[in-house]
Amino acid sequence: MKCRKCREKAVINMRQHKLALCKEHYLEWFVEQTERFIKKYKMFTRDERVLVAVSGGKDSLALWDVLLKLGYQADGFYLRLGIDGGIQYSDESYEKIKKFVAEHPGTQLHVVDAKEMYGESIPEVAQRSRRGRGKPCSVCGLIKRHEMNRIAHDLGYPVLATGHNLDDEAAVLFSNTLHWQVGYLARQYPVLPEGDGFARKVKPFCRFYERETAAYALLAGIDYMYEECPYSEGANTIYYKELLNKLEAERPGAKLHFYLSFLRAKDKDGLFANWEEEKVELHACERCGQPTSAPGLCAFCRLWPEEVLNKPQEAFVPLTLVGGLHTQHDEEEATTL
Amino acid sequence: MKCRKCREKAVINMRQHKLALCKEHYLEWFVEQTERFIKKYKMFTRDERVLVAVSGGKDSLALWDVLLKLGYQADGFYLRLGIDGGIQYSDESYEKIKKFVAEHPGTQLHVVDAKEMYGESIPEVAQRSRRGRGKPCSVCGLIKRHEMNRIAHDLGYPVLATGHNLDDEAAVLFSNTLHWQVGYLARQYPVLPEGDGFARKVKPFCRFYERETAAYALLAGIDYMYEECPYSEGANTIYYKELLNKLEAERPGAKLHFYLSFLRAKDKDGLFANWEEEKVELHACERCGQPTSAPGLCAFCRLWPEEVLNKPQEAFVPLTLVGGLHTQHDEEEATTL
Repeated sequence: MKCRKCREKAVINMRQHKLALCKEHYLEWFVEQTERFIKKYKMFTRDERVLVAVSGGKDSLALWDVLLKLGYQADGFYLRLGIDGGIQYSDESYEKIKKFVAEHPGTQLHVVDAKEMYGESIPEVAQRSRRGRGKPCSVCGLIKRHEMNRIAHDLGYPVLATGHNLDDEAAVLFSNTLHWQVGYLARQYPVLPEGDGFARKVKPFCRFYERETAAYALLAGIDYMYEECPYSEGANTIYYKELLNKLEAERPGAKLHFYLSFLRAKDKDGLFANWEEEKVELHACERCGQPTSAPGLCAFCRLWPEEVLNKPQEAFVPLTLVGGLHTQHDEEEATTL
Repeated sequence: MKCRKCREKAVINMRQHKLALCKEHYLEWFVEQTERFIKKYKMFTRDERVLVAVSGGKDSLALWDVLLKLGYQADGFYLRLGIDGGIQYSDESYEKIKKFVAEHPGTQLHVVDAKEMYGESIPEVAQRSRRGRGKPCSVCGLIKRHEMNRIAHDLGYPVLATGHNLDDEAAVLFSNTLHWQVGYLARQYPVLPEGDGFARKVKPFCRFYERETAAYALLAGIDYMYEECPYSEGANTIYYKELLNKLEAERPGAKLHFYLSFLRAKDKDGLFANWEEEKVELHACERCGQPTSAPGLCAFCRLWPEEVLNKPQEAFVPLTLVGGLHTQHDEEEATTL
């Protein structure tokens, strides 16, 4: 198999695109494609500061890397979950991210440590709360969404980017379709517009297969966390991903076609276009101001006991690492000493 | 496992309904459910003559049987395809149907023989026409739809019923969803309204699993054609059925939930409700008058050479068998002799 561009030995063959490329041209193609998707879906411009939610995995670090290569103003956000699971999941993930930051001078990483700020790690709060019993994924998702919104809002990022790839998006779409969840289907899109002072949400990798983002991370020399979260096993999305993989194995391109024809039905045929009219009224949470469906506290703020909610504002300010291996906190200390 | 109604030994356990029944109560339940679906989707009344498209398989013969038990005015329509495939598929199917008719005095069966009327069996016309090359299923579907419409129209049946079961409907829905074929999704429903002088189309079994219709046919003592059409192997719908069966095996009821939540999205959420406005304009075929998307001849009439199309009207009158084992043609001959 030879690279279509230079006839050198190809390192990847993308059957669904009928495209084989060598390392150099794959890296180039991947970056160009990302730029194409950003423009096509009007995600953001070079004038807008973008906050990339990073987990330490291949997708989010690859996304941050590509956005920096493309000259976007991209900083990172990391939520320390406090998950061990026998593989020191959170500790190792954090190490990978710190290494990435050290290698990209000038970039900023904003870190929220769940245990430090709220008094409990994700497994602990999941254990305690009714919502998380059995599976902490629901609580984890809730906390991640809330903290991403909060940090983007407080630090003035108009755009929040996540590394969701095609496999993620197709699995969510598949699940929503099998249950015909019209409300969710109406909302699923590569861009969710800003509103109520909260950032626009974008998924620049939504058209890349997982193996394509993995290939990029590997070939670009990004040292990422290979292990999946120990709690993810048996999760619904994994089940739907397996079914879609069966489909893809027999019909290369089926997953991409499924997702793209959904987007086309929305863009061209106006499917779900009138749905917005019927959406539920949103209220601002009494404590944090984020949108919630019922008056009073939002689901996130309801998670925590009084004494946590009453902590002073400063207790919730993230730690900021600056690319080049020292933190803003360190600097402050250095100047005040 | 005991029957929920009489505590006798159950013959079937429907996990998705959490319902086990003995033979007697299963037959009763199945007939009652059919009546419920007919009423729920306003399919037809006892004042309307219903033409049941029969193939000789379990679904269509079970449907005819149930409609007769419920006191509906149900007659049969059979298209002789002329398929052999080493198992004398068409000959054997016809034998099963004739046996059913013989056992139900007073019912009528209208038979169209493709080879006799149009000069070619389905495999022959498929072989000759561009549309059927490779797979005759597309040509077969086209001819069946056309002839069903024609016979219902000419013989004055306002309603056309087919034996499609949940597995069929879910597979079609799955295929249309994987490709987000909005036009097809907008049309898929247990009832298609009448229009342009052509009959309403109904699927009274659309909420029964295939194993439920099979169980009914077996327990009701219906002698049906067990073999599938020899051409159906490898067909797309079979592929989608297998995928859905995997889903169902892990999550009993998943298939029913998929189909019913789709219907709910249409009925309650108004999904696809505005689609009709954009549908393509239909013309009447110059020869047969059936609706077609382009002016001139419809796809069916384009299949045949001039000499077939120019045959006199009488050449296309179906043979009608009357329950009790003699034909209307026989009777006519007897009176004219």
